[in-house]
Amino acid sequence: MASNPLTKANFLAPVQDLLVRVEQKMHAQADQHHPDLHAALEHLLSSGGKRLRPALALLMGNLFLGDEERLITLAAAIEMLHTATLVHDDLIDGALLRRGIATLNSRWSPAATVLTGDFIFARAAKLAAETRSVEVMLLFAETLSTIVNGEITQLFSSRGLASRQDYERRIYAKTASVFDVATRAAGLLSHVDEMTLQKIGAYGYNTGMAFQIIDDILDFTGEQATIGKPVASDLRQGLITLPALYYLEKYPQDAGMRRILAGESLDEEAFTRLIASIRESGAIQDAYYEARRYVDTSVEQMDGFPDRVERQSLVDLAYYIVNRQF
Amino acid sequence: MASNPLTKANFLAPVQDLLVRVEQKMHAQADQHHPDLHAALEHLLSSGGKRLRPALALLMGNLFLGDEERLITLAAAIEMLHTATLVHDDLIDGALLRRGIATLNSRWSPAATVLTGDFIFARAAKLAAETRSVEVMLLFAETLSTIVNGEITQLFSSRGLASRQDYERRIYAKTASVFDVATRAAGLLSHVDEMTLQKIGAYGYNTGMAFQIIDDILDFTGEQATIGKPVASDLRQGLITLPALYYLEKYPQDAGMRRILAGESLDEEAFTRLIASIRESGAIQDAYYEARRYVDTSVEQMDGFPDRVERQSLVDLAYYIVNRQF
Repeated sequence: MASNPLTKANFLAPVQDLLVRVEQKMHAQADQHHPDLHAALEHLLSSGGKRLRPALALLMGNLFLGDEERLITLAAAIEMLHTATLVHDDLIDGALLRRGIATLNSRWSPAATVLTGDFIFARAAKLAAETRSVEVMLLFAETLSTIVNGEITQLFSSRGLASRQDYERRIYAKTASVFDVATRAAGLLSHVDEMTLQKIGAYGYNTGMAFQIIDDILDFTGEQATIGKPVASDLRQGLITLPALYYLEKYPQDAGMRRILAGESLDEEAFTRLIASIRESGAIQDAYYEARRYVDTSVEQMDGFPDRVERQSLVDLAYYIVNRQF
Repeated sequence: MASNPLTKANFLAPVQDLLVRVEQKMHAQADQHHPDLHAALEHLLSSGGKRLRPALALLMGNLFLGDEERLITLAAAIEMLHTATLVHDDLIDGALLRRGIATLNSRWSPAATVLTGDFIFARAAKLAAETRSVEVMLLFAETLSTIVNGEITQLFSSRGLASRQDYERRIYAKTASVFDVATRAAGLLSHVDEMTLQKIGAYGYNTGMAFQIIDDILDFTGEQATIGKPVASDLRQGLITLPALYYLEKYPQDAGMRRILAGESLDEEAFTRLIASIRESGAIQDAYYEARRYVDTSVEQMDGFPDRVERQSLVDLAYYIVNRQF
C-alpha cells in the first residue's frame, strides 16, 4: 500500500488543464451533425467516468515532452474509442445503467444505439488521424480489432471456461490493450527511442491488466448500489474471472462452480452461498496480490524515465488503480 | 445511351489482376482472429457485389500512376468500409437477404452482428492506415462520419420528407461520399496537383450520385426476385426518393402520396396503384435523365486526364452505372 493518501486530484494535477481541453474536444465531435447525435454524445460524456485513459496519454506524453496539441487529440481519440465500445457493449448486454446513469440503449432504439456507437468510432478514428502519425493510426486500428475480437471471443467461447490464459487474453483485449495504446501512442508522439517505447507500452499494459483485475475483484466485493449491477454479474453469466479462478484452484470440486462451468445456472440461494465462499476463501486477496504484482511491474518500467512531476503522477496513478474502492 | 455494349468485364480489364489481390487482402483480414469472425467475413465477401468502389480506386489510381500496393490496400479499405456499413444497415432494417444471399443478422444474433460490423470497421481503418497517408486516413474517417450521420438523419428525420435537398444529402451520405473517397484517396496516393484532385473527386461524387439514383429507380422498376426486396421498399417505409419526388412535382395532390407524406401507411391495393401511377407518369424517365446528367458531369471532369486505357474504363464505368438493370 502506498504510504500517502492517493487522490485522483493529486496525480492528475499536472494535466488538469489539458484534460479540460480533451473534454472540450470530445464534446465538439458531434457539432454540425444531427441534433439527436449531439444529444446522445452529451449524455454519454456527462456520465463522466474517471478519464484515466486520457490522463495516462497526457501524463506519459508530457513526461517525454510530446507536442501538447497532438497529445490532447490523442487523448480524446482514446476516450472516444473507449466510449464507443461501451455503447455497443451495453447494447449487447442489455445494461440499463453505467456509472449510475441511464445507458443509451435503455432510452434509444437498438438501431439508434448501433449508429451512435458507429458515429463515435468514426470520430475516434478522425481524431486519431488528426495526430498525423501513421504509427499512431496503425496502433489505434489494431487496438480496435483486438477489442472487438475479444468481445466476439467472449460471446462465443468464454462462458464456463476456467482458463488463466483465456482470462488474461480477455482482460488484455478488453482493457489493457487500451491502456497500452494510450501510453504507447503518447510515446510515439514524443519521439522516444525504441527501448523507451517498449517500457512505456509495458507500463500501460501492466497498469491496464491491474485495472481490470481490480474491476473483477470489485464485481465480487462491491455493493450493488455502488457498482450499479448485481454482485458477481460476470459469474452469473458464466464468465470466470480471477477471484473465481483462484477459488477453483483451492476448491476444484466445489459443486456450485462445477455447475457454472457446465453451463448450468444456480438459484439465488446457491449463488449467494457460492459468492460468500469465494469471499471467505482468500481468493479475492490472491487476486489483489496479482494486481499488485502487475502494478509493481508497471512502476519498475519507469526506472530511468525523466525525473519530472509526471513520473510521480504515473506511479501514483498505478497505485491508485489497485487501491480504489469503485 | 453509349453506343457500344458495356460489360463489366470490359472496363474492369485493366485492373482485373489487381482486383484479385484486393479480394485476397480482404479475405485475409480475419486471419488469426476468432473462427466465427473468419466464417462471417467469408460469408459476407462470398456474396460478391460488383466491387465497383475498389475498381474506381484502382482505375483512378492507375490512371495517375499511383503505387500499386498502396492502391490495393486503399481499395480493400474502401470495400471493407462499405461492407461494414451494410452489416449494420441490414441489422437495423431487419433485412434477410442481400444480393440474394442471407444477411448476417438473419443467421446470427444481433450481438454477434453488431460486433462483426465493428470488426470490419476496425479492419477497414487498419487498411486505411496501411496506405501510410495521413490525408487518406483523414478523408476515410470523415467519410465514415458522413455515412453514419446520414443513417441517423434518415432514421430520425427523413420519413415522409419530400425535399430535394434532403434527398441529395441522403444519397451523398449513403453512396456518393464513398465513391468520392474511393477516387479522391486514389488521387492522393498518386500525388496529383490540387486542381486534378478536385476533378477526380468530382468524378467520384457525380458517379456516386448517379449510381444511387439508378438504385432508387430500380427499386421502382425492378422485380422483387431480381432486387431481392419488395418493389418500392423505400416508399413503403416513407422514404421519398427521386422518382417519387418527380411524381409529386407533377401530381402534388395525389391522395396516396399525401398519405405517405403524412406518415400513414397504404393498404397493398392502394400502394400497388400508386406504384403503377408513378411508373406511368414519366417520373422514372425524369429521374433517369437526372442520373444521366450526373454521369455526363462525371465524364466532363476527365477532360485533360491522361490518355490511357484506364480513362476509357472510367468513362465506360460511368455509363455502365446508368445503363445497368440490377
